Formats: sequence, structure tokens, C-alpha cells
Amino acid sequence: MKKRLLLLWLAGCLSTTLFAQKKYEANWASIDSRPVPGWFEDAKFGIFIHWGLFSVPAFGPTARDGVGIYDRYAEWYWKKWSDPTAKSYPVFQKFHERVYGPNVKYPDFVEGFKAELFNPDEWAKVFEQSGAKYVVLTSKHHEGFTLWPSAQSWNWNAVDVGPHRDLAGDLIKSVKDKGLRMGYYYSLYEWFNPLYKENVNRYVDEHMIPQLKDLVTRYKPDIVWTDGEWDHPSDVWKSTEFLAWLYNESPVKEEVVVNDRWGKETRAKHGGFFTTEYELVHSDNSESMKFSRPWEECRGIGSSFGYNRVELLEDYSSSADVIHILIEKVSRGGNLLLNIGPTADGRIPVIMQQRLKDMGDWMKVNSEAIYGTRAWDKAPAFKKGNKLFFTRKGNDLYAIATEWTDQLVMDGISPKKVTLLGYNGTIKATGKGGKWTITAPAVTPSTIPCQYAWVYKLEAAVK
Amino acid sequence: MKKRLLLLWLAGCLSTTLFAQKKYEANWASIDSRPVPGWFEDAKFGIFIHWGLFSVPAFGPTARDGVGIYDRYAEWYWKKWSDPTAKSYPVFQKFHERVYGPNVKYPDFVEGFKAELFNPDEWAKVFEQSGAKYVVLTSKHHEGFTLWPSAQSWNWNAVDVGPHRDLAGDLIKSVKDKGLRMGYYYSLYEWFNPLYKENVNRYVDEHMIPQLKDLVTRYKPDIVWTDGEWDHPSDVWKSTEFLAWLYNESPVKEEVVVNDRWGKETRAKHGGFFTTEYELVHSDNSESMKFSRPWEECRGIGSSFGYNRVELLEDYSSSADVIHILIEKVSRGGNLLLNIGPTADGRIPVIMQQRLKDMGDWMKVNSEAIYGTRAWDKAPAFKKGNKLFFTRKGNDLYAIATEWTDQLVMDGISPKKVTLLGYNGTIKATGKGGKWTITAPAVTPSTIPCQYAWVYKLEAAVK
Amino acid sequence: MKKRLLLLWLAGCLSTTLFAQKKYEANWASIDSRPVPGWFEDAKFGIFIHWGLFSVPAFGPTARDGVGIYDRYAEWYWKKWSDPTAKSYPVFQKFHERVYGPNVKYPDFVEGFKAELFNPDEWAKVFEQSGAKYVVLTSKHHEGFTLWPSAQSWNWNAVDVGPHRDLAGDLIKSVKDKGLRMGYYYSLYEWFNPLYKENVNRYVDEHMIPQLKDLVTRYKPDIVWTDGEWDHPSDVWKSTEFLAWLYNESPVKEEVVVNDRWGKETRAKHGGFFTTEYELVHSDNSESMKFSRPWEECRGIGSSFGYNRVELLEDYSSSADVIHILIEKVSRGGNLLLNIGPTADGRIPVIMQQRLKDMGDWMKVNSEAIYGTRAWDKAPAFKKGNKLFFTRKGNDLYAIATEWTDQLVMDGISPKKVTLLGYNGTIKATGKGGKWTITAPAVTPSTIPCQYAWVYKLEAAVK
Amino acid sequence: MKKRLLLLWLAGCLSTTLFAQKKYEANWASIDSRPVPGWFEDAKFGIFIHWGLFSVPAFGPTARDGVGIYDRYAEWYWKKWSDPTAKSYPVFQKFHERVYGPNVKYPDFVEGFKAELFNPDEWAKVFEQSGAKYVVLTSKHHEGFTLWPSAQSWNWNAVDVGPHRDLAGDLIKSVKDKGLRMGYYYSLYEWFNPLYKENVNRYVDEHMIPQLKDLVTRYKPDIVWTDGEWDHPSDVWKSTEFLAWLYNESPVKEEVVVNDRWGKETRAKHGGFFTTEYELVHSDNSESMKFSRPWEECRGIGSSFGYNRVELLEDYSSSADVIHILIEKVSRGGNLLLNIGPTADGRIPVIMQQRLKDMGDWMKVNSEAIYGTRAWDKAPAFKKGNKLFFTRKGNDLYAIATEWTDQLVMDGISPKKVTLLGYNGTIKATGKGGKWTITAPAVTPSTIPCQYAWVYKLEAAVK
Repeated sequence: MKKRLLLLWLAGCLSTTLFAQKKYEANWASIDSRPVPGWFEDAKFGIFIHWGLFSVPAFGPTARDGVGIYDRYAEWYWKKWSDPTAKSYPVFQKFHERVYGPNVKYPDFVEGFKAELFNPDEWAKVFEQSGAKYVVLTSKHHEGFTLWPSAQSWNWNAVDVGPHRDLAGDLIKSVKDKGLRMGYYYSLYEWFNPLYKENVNRYVDEHMIPQLKDLVTRYKPDIVWTDGEWDHPSDVWKSTEFLAWLYNESPVKEEVVVNDRWGKETRAKHGGFFTTEYELVHSDNSESMKFSRPWEECRGIGSSFGYNRVELLEDYSSSADVIHILIEKVSRGGNLLLNIGPTADGRIPVIMQQRLKDMGDWMKVNSEAIYGTRAWDKAPAFKKGNKLFFTRKGNDLYAIATEWTDQLVMDGISPKKVTLLGYNGTIKATGKGGKWTITAPAVTPSTIPCQYAWVYKLEAAVK
Repeated sequence: MKKRLLLLWLAGCLSTTLFAQKKYEANWASIDSRPVPGWFEDAKFGIFIHWGLFSVPAFGPTARDGVGIYDRYAEWYWKKWSDPTAKSYPVFQKFHERVYGPNVKYPDFVEGFKAELFNPDEWAKVFEQSGAKYVVLTSKHHEGFTLWPSAQSWNWNAVDVGPHRDLAGDLIKSVKDKGLRMGYYYSLYEWFNPLYKENVNRYVDEHMIPQLKDLVTRYKPDIVWTDGEWDHPSDVWKSTEFLAWLYNESPVKEEVVVNDRWGKETRAKHGGFFTTEYELVHSDNSESMKFSRPWEECRGIGSSFGYNRVELLEDYSSSADVIHILIEKVSRGGNLLLNIGPTADGRIPVIMQQRLKDMGDWMKVNSEAIYGTRAWDKAPAFKKGNKLFFTRKGNDLYAIATEWTDQLVMDGISPKKVTLLGYNGTIKATGKGGKWTITAPAVTPSTIPCQYAWVYKLEAAVK
Repeated sequence: MKKRLLLLWLAGCLSTTLFAQKKYEANWASIDSRPVPGWFEDAKFGIFIHWGLFSVPAFGPTARDGVGIYDRYAEWYWKKWSDPTAKSYPVFQKFHERVYGPNVKYPDFVEGFKAELFNPDEWAKVFEQSGAKYVVLTSKHHEGFTLWPSAQSWNWNAVDVGPHRDLAGDLIKSVKDKGLRMGYYYSLYEWFNPLYKENVNRYVDEHMIPQLKDLVTRYKPDIVWTDGEWDHPSDVWKSTEFLAWLYNESPVKEEVVVNDRWGKETRAKHGGFFTTEYELVHSDNSESMKFSRPWEECRGIGSSFGYNRVELLEDYSSSADVIHILIEKVSRGGNLLLNIGPTADGRIPVIMQQRLKDMGDWMKVNSEAIYGTRAWDKAPAFKKGNKLFFTRKGNDLYAIATEWTDQLVMDGISPKKVTLLGYNGTIKATGKGGKWTITAPAVTPSTIPCQYAWVYKLEAAVK
Repeated sequence: MKKRLLLLWLAGCLSTTLFAQKKYEANWASIDSRPVPGWFEDAKFGIFIHWGLFSVPAFGPTARDGVGIYDRYAEWYWKKWSDPTAKSYPVFQKFHERVYGPNVKYPDFVEGFKAELFNPDEWAKVFEQSGAKYVVLTSKHHEGFTLWPSAQSWNWNAVDVGPHRDLAGDLIKSVKDKGLRMGYYYSLYEWFNPLYKENVNRYVDEHMIPQLKDLVTRYKPDIVWTDGEWDHPSDVWKSTEFLAWLYNESPVKEEVVVNDRWGKETRAKHGGFFTTEYELVHSDNSESMKFSRPWEECRGIGSSFGYNRVELLEDYSSSADVIHILIEKVSRGGNLLLNIGPTADGRIPVIMQQRLKDMGDWMKVNSEAIYGTRAWDKAPAFKKGNKLFFTRKGNDLYAIATEWTDQLVMDGISPKKVTLLGYNGTIKATGKGGKWTITAPAVTPSTIPCQYAWVYKLEAAVK
């Protein structure tokens, strides 16, 4: 017990030193000096939620339309439908013309956004059971419509019109009640806001910064997940000023986590954790995951973040797929922020519930190989097609096989003990000089601990 | 011809002196020193238009509900329905509950505002034929919804949502094409705008003043008709600063006319012309019309400014009524700004067209007794029930009988000639010592020049 | 008193003879032998009401579209919009495309038919005050949608969908409470009913006859006003069978009145009273009014029966016009069934209230020259432009001047006394040998008894 | 080859004898004498589709509301919401009041039924890939709204209103193009049709029979799946007359299959195949499956037939569940008609696509144990909890294990050869005296042929 008290005291000193005492200044050197609060890197798995007016048409191109992944985002409806140079323009045009006709403009979709079946406690239960540790909701996407009663967006928010409900506020309460962290996505820019287009400085001062501060002080989110930063460098957005306020003065200064989308020059350079999106940024570069900071991959279960009604089963990642993605990102040191797109009436599509439940079932058996782990620096270089991944926690290694293999051979380890998570029998493992061979046990569908991927725990395998 | 050129030259000098040269300062003494441009006092008759989201429920109490005139305004729906202390609260509540139910909030009415039949050229023709010389449209009422694409009211204006059309811009073009003047009503305050409620100073700087300047520079209106000023003194609204800009720098500095609603202390004291509303301010006080400035009475044809669908014929003023009101106001030195309430689909209710046409028919015969006249300072004191009114133009008097009387006796005049406007025969008029008796001619329905009121012109009757 | 009792007894005998006793057979000779119940010919003035789904788009061409009067009917929207050979087809197409787009089909208009402001007592009051003695409502127009809960038109009637209210039933109650007669317009055919198109016999047996009998037994109307008969001869419609039932067995057999629209061969030949429509049938034929039966002209106040939102004031008949039309029809022995077109939300447009009130005001003074009168068989032949009309009641004549004339000369009369209705003074009338001259009295706007037309009563003028 | 020709000739004779030659009479003895065409009993697996206006509110109680399975049908919204004695009445009432309010009546839901994303080819592909051999669509449910342009249901069908599309016709074309059979569900009664309520005989003659014949002649369905028969005995419905026409004269007389819902006395007694619904009829009776005719169990994937938006993942049967249900029904001699509930916009919810795909994946390996099989009359009596099922085809048996078991023991067989479907290795099977033991092979997740259930084929195991 004494040892424990000592540790607590040390932790107190440390956090005082690291967070409470320090005064951050409004420049990147100072802002970047703040470590990302540890809860984030340990959490590994979060749920992203894209919800807004785009959930009303809930339409985007699919692979069948012959456009790439970044052209399938349903939440970009307004922009793509308005921009004749966009690749997906004809797909959106044709759909809009056929279904709505020329008299319906995008803001008119607010009529169809009712969220009448929204049950935030049910959502939170789904998230909790998935094994996710945090949630990020679009408080405002590029369209500018806010899911909270923003004074800066009067009559263009979910309380004044549409659902007539504080969606952002109601959800954070339910999610936190479940013991999960929650934060907000927030788009710095707004495609069609005339204030933004005419005078970005007034927009930042009168609209954006007040909105961000309102969000933070009103709901005390654990994460501020910005986006839409690419039009301007961070000084135009006054990002460091905001972050200095967030870190020094805001009610969440101790624990809040932010990302790296704070100006056209900041991704993978400044801010809090770094972000990738469908592998953009670190994609095919096996070294790229060696970010200097915690990082997080965000992606949909289907090809879109906003709900896309025309996506078929074939457009959705399978349960195996999403579990494998989680394993890959975590083994490479990252987090996975897996997106769901609720419907305009306020439901999580059941297929998404299914995917999340399957992840949760897997995590019930295997989560110790995920939470709190780090990439193993001796792991074989990542390549597409890898079937074996490693995570490390202290001296223990976790070898995660995404395909059942009778014999697994691995190098550079000397485990004291090898077990298969969820399996009671002993595992045969032999080796010397760091090269070990693990023999999979004989299992049947009735005795196998889980599906999709299997974790061998290699205790005290590394120093 | 020489004389005419001389006059023009003199007029030029005068206007240069009065308007162009002077630099107004942002204080009432300076602002008030600017004379109201003469066109306004000469125009006498204008059309007020209340159009907005309130035109969708288009509902207000009537006399049958036992509430007073100021509680029947349909354009106050949002406020009265929300305020349990309002006299008309139960009437609005009952209606809303029965027709829309609790899920529909006021901003949702935007779905029903389509203006699909709006034909501004047709409107302008109706106004022109009524004999009105100017038009005032609600660019924004207390609800905050703007009829023009205001950058400060994004997605809460008639271009982004609802009609998807620049109603304010399209109308001013058509009205000016007909040779009429046009301006805008603009509410300083907005009942439920959180920016206004939380920080009036920021509201004024970031929202209100930019909107006013945008309106003026974008459309070059002849009138800026403010309202909703009563919450704050004019210094909070920065009214004199705005007016100094309007008078010194704006593109309409020469000809623009404003009213007196610029702060809780300004009505009938400061600004341009003074305003009354259903006689409020000068009501039962026969002296009250002796304002130090031109003034204007505004009122509806029915009991409401915004269209009220439940008004029956009995709620509308008759054609005789509105003509008599015009005569009364003009004879007392004022203008009449008679209101119409268009429908949500963009039409002027035909009964209002009828009233305006009847006024126009009367004006075709009698307008010389209206336009360009002034009150006759020797006229008998005004009393309710008067049937004889006077206007003066130069040395001529116009005696306007709102009831046909066989013999009219009047005092203090010595006309050189007496005629009945629109009547070719001679009029018997005898008098001495300033007391004259005019005998009405024998007319039949086939020979009478007009209905509702008859004008005897007394040439050179006064000095 | 004795004389009065005797008269009552005689009247009883007469009605027994004429109505109760007789058994009508299902052939025209027998059906035609039933006299039109006297109340109808005495009533002279009725109100026609066209209300239905067509009141939702409420659109039709106007004179400005260059189409004739019969092509301006807004209630024909569905048909004209669907028929490329129709003259008004392009006008309807353009409107529909612009306002609704191709996804909206005619039956979808039911969404907009709410009648939420319908107040049948208020309507009845308006009708009563107009001086009308009866009312005819479209229980079903050619579209097939019924204003009562017809079992044959399930979910295509005003109770199941749209207003969710028995419009036909609620109105007849209110109208009868005011002491007026009321009946129903009923279209025999239905443009697009597949049952009608595929098998007219089954349509008649299973749909039409059950509907007609339901209407009659459910509401006991005073009038059955059929239309849409032109596709088939009356034997296909089984008209005489229905009429035999109506005259022999129905609960309204004594007093019910029907018109002449019972088959392609029946107009102006068979049935009850004869009908004209914007003078169709007897139009330019000055003799044509010499029908063998009572007759009735129906027409709108504007150019359409169904409400047409785009009609301007110039499209409406003036109060003088409608009063003159009434006088003309009555003087020629007919009735006038003047149409109003309520709005989809259940109101009588105020301009129509105005016209009806002006008629009522005129009737208050002059109705004795209308009710219960007949055409004077010695009256000068009718010509367009006539300004003097006659009606006769017993030995009295009424000379009705639609233009004020100082001296009226008339032939073939020898009145015992001449008065001007509503005027207390004596009227100078001199004549001999049947040729008389009446001199109009000197009146002023303050003493004239009414506007629009003036009635001289010539007592005992004819034998 | 000769043998094959001979067989064909014999089959021709047989079918001529059984079907073509015979004239069925309108009585049950005669109707029942027609064998159910063999294709049906061989098909084993069909897809049921409940689609209609109920798909708009798409709401029903769930297990969380504490009501039984038969009270959770979303397609009963109209009835349950209207019937205060219904167990689920308060659940429906509360939902309707909260979401729609009292002004919205059930038929108003037609406004929300647009089917704008309906792609029948995509649906057919999903059905084909599931391994189903036939499809049954609700052409009309108890609400009376038809998915085809029924002349008897004018303006209350999917072509006149709502989707403006022939949903029934478009789907049958796509399904047949894929080589699947298709038929229609048709409700004999209509809850609220006044014609039905007032005069069932006229309803049957004028409405129901014409609709049924129209369906059959227009689309030539393979199945006529009636329901809603319980109010009246079959003679009231004139069922045998209709069936005699269907079997003797209709264009589908050779191949059409019907069920047993033809009158309150007919279930499991008369007609074509017998029906059960969530095991109703044969539920807890282990002998009950011994029907004298082919039979079919229908049920949802969730608790409702019509789409229920508030069903969560926990309300859906898992893929294992639905595969096990199919196995159980087929092993007992029945078919499974598994229901999906499309959305109002025309989509098959992706979770349902997932279930169907998983069934299809299983069927790809195992379908020979399903199609064309019959119950094995020596199989152990059915009990809840059974994990081993048998089907028989000729002399072969299929032993289907729904749980992986290392050793399976079975009685009464003497197989010549034992294989595991989808598995290439040999299977150890030993036995004597009819008692055999099969040993499951050693498999891993990488080598196992399928999930959820595994089929041992026992060749020539029975005589």
C-alpha cells in the first residue's frame, strides 16, 4: 500500500508539473510542448459520429459510380452538388433533380431532420458495448448547421429548427454517464457562410472562436476535434490563441485532447494527436506511422461518414474488416476512430450496431491486447497483407493473428509464458535465440475463444 | 421659360446648401438639423407592406376575441404565443395547438413561406394605381428573418430558405420602375436573437449596423423606417452614428428619409419624420398633430399589419373608411402609410387590391387636394366626427366633405373661385367677411364625379 | 282569417295532388311531369360553392393568358394539365412544372387540403346576409374526391384524408340553421376513375347511384345538382330510375329540386329546372330565355368556379356587375346561382364576402323586386346593353334601372301608383295609352336609397 | 437416354392427368384434390416482404414494451392505435401523439411513402444470393392500400399516390428475371373499408374478387398468399369459386400455389399448403408437423413483419438463428418464408441484407440438404433445444448439426458413405445394427467449410 501511495504522490507532482503549473503561450512551440493527455493514447478505440442536415438526403456516390473513396462522402452533398468541377457533381445532380427537383435547396433539408427516435442512452449503450472508450460527434460540419443551440448560428441549429433538441448536449450526458470520454468535431470553415467568405477575420472573431469557446465551456468535452482548416494558415484561424485559452483557462484544461487540424500547415506537425483518414497522410509508407505523437485513424464502416442510404451490404466493411483495421492501427501505435452515420430520425443503423457489437464481443476476450498498449518497435515492418500484428504493454507482447495459422514463427522475443487469450488450455511454444514457434491449439467452433482474430500473449517477452 | 431656369438654379443652390455641403455629426442636434427631404411631405400617401414568416400562420386575434387593436397584430405571433403574460396569449396558444401542435416551432414556418406567386411588377402596378407615391416593405421584422440575402442572417433569410428569392430586391426594382419611391422597414431589435439578448453591443456592431448599411448600399432605398427601438436608448443602438453615415456618406444621402424610431427616447422628438400608429402618440389630443416635423400615420386596412387569415369582411376598413382616413391625416399635415399584408404565396389579397383601387379612383379626381398640400393653420380644430376637412396649397384651399351636404359654411376665407373637382358645372358660393356658403350642385349617380368624399377647390382663398 | 284557412286547405289539397299522391315512373315523360317545387323559382338567388382538391393548387388561366372563359376553370386543373390537346394545357403545364415539379401528381394535393379555418356558421351568415335563398356545394366534382365520407370513395374523401372533416355535412347543418335551402352539386362522371373508364355500367351501379342515394338519405338536401353527364345518354346513367326513386321514395321527395344535367340529351329538355352557364345554351338568342321550365344561370364572380389564386381584382366582377347580372337573369325569368371558391384552408376570400355583402345591401332595399317574381311577358326584348329591366309579381311591375336616368319611358303599362323602393318621396309619373314617363327624383349621395341599380315599383300596372 | 425420354413421357401424362385435364369444382373436396405443385415443396426457402403505408411510421412495440410477439407487428399500426382494447394500444398511442399529434390520421402517411430509392433489380439480387427460391410481396395488407394500380382502390394505391410507381409489377419482373418464383400476399378483409363493414357480400363481389382476378391476370404470380380471412367462413369470401377459377381458367392454373387462409374454418384444413406463423398452429405439438400437406412457416427476422424503426440489434434474429430456423422447418417437412420489411424510401435494411447473405453463404455449401428434401419419418421427435436435424432425399439422409459436436450418434441408419458437405477429407463413421457414430473432423477457422451449422451427408442410409 505504501508503494501505491508513493506512486499517487509522484503522479500528482507530475501532473502538476506537466499540466497545471505551466502557462502555454499562443505559439506552436509552446502549444506543442503540452503532452497529449495519456488517457487518449491508452483508449485506442473511439466512435466517430457524423450527423447533420446531410443525414436528410443521406446520399452519396458509391463504388458503383466509379468515383474514389474521398468522393463518396455523403456529408459533402451541399458542396459537391454545387460544384460543377467536382468529380461526383453529376451523381449528386442527377439524384437531387430526380428526388427533390430544383425548388429544393440544401437548407430546406432541415424540414426532414427530426431526430424523433433519438435515444442517447441507447446510443451510449451501443458505444460502451463495442469496447470503444471515447466518442466524437460532429457539433458542426462544413455546412455550418450546429447540433447545439449556438448563439452564433441562430435558427440554423438543432434546437431552433429541425429536431428542436440539444443533440450535442443530450448525447454527451448519456455517454459520460457510461464512463466513456466524449468530445466534438468542429469544422473551422463553413462552405457557404457569407461572413466567412467575405471577411474571414470577422468570421473567426465573431463566429468561430465564440462557438468553440461556447462548446467547451457549455459541455466540457474531452476532445476538440477540428477540421476544415485547409483554406488558411493557423494564424488566420487564431488557433494558437484558442489553444492557449483551452490549455490555460478552460474548464477542461487538464484532460482535453485536440488533434492536428488547426491550419493549412499543421497536419502531422502541430497540435495534439495526429490524424489520418482512410490512411491519408501515412498511407503506403511503412515508416509513416512513426509519428512523433499519438495518432488516430478515422474512417467509416462504409465509404461515407454521413449516412448514405444507397450503400448496400457490399459497401460496408465486414465485422472481420473492422476488427482487423483496429488491430492494424493499434499495432502501429495509433487509435481507431470508427465512424457511424445516424439517420435523420435519430437511429444508429442496425448494421452498424452489428459491427460494433461484433467488435465488442471480440474486445471482451482480447481487450488487454489493445487498451494501454503501444507499438512494438521491433515488429516486422507493416505491409498490406500482413496477418500477424504485435502490441506491447510493458514487457509483455501480444501477437495478434488475423488469420488462423497452425504454426506462428516470430523473432526477437523470449517469452516466459505463452497463452491464447480466452483459451484455458496450454499453448505449445518453443524457441531459442529469440526465434520462437507457437503452435495453435486444436479448437472447434464450440471451443474457440472468439472469431476474426486471435491473440497470443507473450509474457515478459521483451525488455 | 427664363423664370423656370432661374428657379431651377435657385433650387440647385438651395439643395447644395441644405444637403450636400453640410457634414452631419453623430448627435441629435446635428442630425435633427437636417430637414426631411421635401418629396416625402409632398407624397402624402404610401403603402406599408408587412411580409415575413408571420405570413405563414397568418393568424391573429380579431375584435371577436375581445382584445384591443394593438393585441391583434398577426406579425407578433411568435412573441405573443410565447409570452403567458400577453393578453392575446390564450388566443394564439389555442390556435397553434389546434392547427400545428406542439412539435411545430415558429421557425418551422419557413417551410410554408414559398412566395411562388409573387409578381413584383403586378404589385407595383397595384400601388401605382392606388395613387400612393411610396412603398415601405418590412426588410426584417422583430422575428429577425430577412427578406434579402443578409450575410448577418445566413439561412434565416428569404434567399437561403423559404422563397429562395430576393424579395426585397425584386420589389424595389419593380416599384422604382413605376416611378414610385421605395424604402424599408427594419426592426432594430430581434425578440429571440441570442446575440441580442446576451450582448446588445455586439449585436449592434456585428449584426444590426452591418445589416442596415448593407440594405442601404445594396438597394439605395428612399426611406429607412426603423422600429423595435424601445428596449434601449439611441446611444445603445448607435443611431446617430448610423444616421451621420447615412446623411454624409451613403449613396442615398441626398434624398433618403428616416423616421423617429431610433431609441426609447426618440419618438416624436428626434430623427426624420414623426410616426403615429393607429393614432398612438397624437390620438385624442387635437393639438398633437402640431408636430415640429412632417409626420406619418401607419395602420392596416384590417386590424393587423401582417396578413390575418381569420379576418372577415367586417374586420376590414371599407373603401370609404380608408379614403376618409387619408383625408383626415393629410388635412392635419400628415402622411398616411396604409398597410397591406401579402400572403405567404406572394399575393396581395384581392380585397386589399379593391381598397387600393377605390383610393386610386378617388385620387384620379381629387389628388390635387392631397399631393403637395399642407395643413391649413386656420382650419377648425380636429374632432372625431368631423365631416369637413381642409388642405392648403399656396393660396388655394381645398375643402373636403366626407359626407355630401347641400350647404357648406366656412369661415376665414375669401375665395376668388370655387369649383368641385371632377365636376364641370359652376358652383354657387356666396360670402362676405370671410364667412362663405357653398351650395352643392345637383348631381345624380350618373353625374357625380366620385364617391366617398368631394373636394371643393377654393382658389386664392387665403394669403 | 277564414279566408286564410281556406287557402291553406286548398294548398294542402294541391300539394297532395301534385306531389304526394303521384307515383313517378322511370321515364322522362313521367319524370318531367313533376313540377319544379315552387320554392325554387321564387328563391331567385343562390350561392354555388366549388371546393375540392382543385382548391389546393387553386390555379387557372386568366384573360391575360388569352384563353376563353370555359378554359379558365381552376377546378379543371387535373384534366387540362393532363390533356395535351387542351387549349390551356401549356398554361397548366408551365405552372405545375415551376411550382410543383414532375414528382407531384394531382392526388398528392390532398396533403394541402386542410380546411383548418373552416367555420360553417360564418359561411352561412355570409350567405344569409347576401340575400341568397339557397346554397349548392360541390359534394364531388369531376376529380371524384368527395366532401363527405362516401363509402364508395374510401380514403379519397374529406373525412378520411385531408381536412378529416365532413365538410358537406357540417355546412348543410349551418346553412339550414339560418333558414336557407341547401343542396349538392354532384358530378356523374369522374375523369380518371378506372371503374368509370373500364365499365360504366358497374360504375353507375356500384359507385354513382350508391353515392347519390347516400347523399340524399344522409343529408336530405333540397337540391340535387348534377353535372358531368355529357359522355353518355341518360339511360346509361340510369337517371330516370334515380329520379323516380328521388321523387317517390326519398326523404326529400316533396321539396327536392333537380336540374337538367342527366344525360347527353337532356339539357334544356328534361329533368327539373334548366341550366345555363356563362349564358351557354341561351346566350345570344334573345328568345332563348323562354324556357318551358324554371331555369338558373350559374357563373363565378371571377372567371373560375374553383378558387384561382392568380386572379387579380381586374378578373373579378364588380359589385355593380354581379347585381346587374342578378337583375338581368331574374328579369328574364331565371335564377342566379353565383359561385364562390373557398380556399384550401376553409375561407371565403374576403373579396367574395364583399361582393355578397354589396348584393345583400342592395337586396335589403330591393328584394321585393326579386323574390317571387316572374319575367314580364311584355318586356322589351333582351339585348346586351339594356339598362332597364322588368320583373312582375301579380299585377305589379318592377322597373329596374341599372343606370340612373332622369326620365324613363315605358310602354304597355298603366300603373296605379309609382314609387322608388327605399325612397320616401313621391315619384312623378305621367302617361297615357300605356306609354308612361317616370321622372327620377333629385337625390344626393346622402339620400339615395342604394347603389348600383334602382327599382321603380309600378303598382297594378298590368293585368 | 431412352429411359429419360420415357420418364418425360410419363411425367407429361401425369401432369395432364393431375392438372390440365381435371376441372375443379367450387367446393373444398374438389379444390383440395389438387396437389400442391411440386416446385413449392422443393423450394423450401422463400422471402416474405411486408411493405405498405405502415412502412411510413414504421413503428411497433418491442420486447422492451412487455408485449407478446403477436402484439409487435408494425403493420398493425392502424388497427392497434385505434383499438383501446388492444394490448399494444397505449404504446401506439403514446408514439403517435408524441411524433405526429392528433391531426395526423393513418391515411395521411401516404405523404411519406415515396419509394424513391426502390431498385427492384437490386432487391432481386439480394433474394437470389440468399438462396431463396421464391418471393411473396404484400400486394395489399389489411389497411387496404394496394401496391399495384388496382381499379378497385383508386387513389389508394402506390401508382396514384405515394410512390407513383407499380411496386408490385416492377418487383415481379425483376424477381422472375433472376429465375425465382414470385407471388403476392393479399388480405381478404380490410379493417376500415366501409364497403366491407357495411356489406361484406358487395365487398366480395365488387372489390375483393375483382382485385384478386386482376392481380392474377395482370402479373401471373406463382403464389396467391391470402390472409385476413378470419372474420368469415370461406363461403362468404367465395373462396372456392375463386380457386376453381384460378385452377381451371386463370393463366397460372398449372403452377400456381395457394395457402390455407380462405375462411375462418380453413387453416390447416383446406386450400393449398398449410401455414404457420411464429409456430402458431403447430407450436408446442411435436406431432403437429405431420400435416397432410406441404406447409410453410412465416416469420420476421425481427419481431415484426412491417419495418419497425425502433427495433435494435437485440431485436433481430442473428444469422445463426435464421439458419437454424430454416434447418428446423425443413427437417420437419416445411418451408420457411422469412420476412423482410423494406423502408418507406424503398430499401432493404442492410442488417436484413446481412442476414440473407449469411444464409446464402451457408446455402452455397449446404443447399443440397435443403432443396428438394423431405422430412425423415424416422427422425427423433422434435424438441426445443435439439441440435441435430435430418432431411431426406431419396435414400440419402442429411444430418445437420446446429452445434459442433465431436461425436454424433444416430439410430436407424446404415449409410454407404458419410461426408461433410464442403469438406474434402474423409469422415470417420462407424456403426452396426443401425446405430452409427460419426466423428467430426479436426478443423480450424481456416479450414471449416461454413459457419452456424454443418451437414453430414449419409448416402444410401435409408430405404
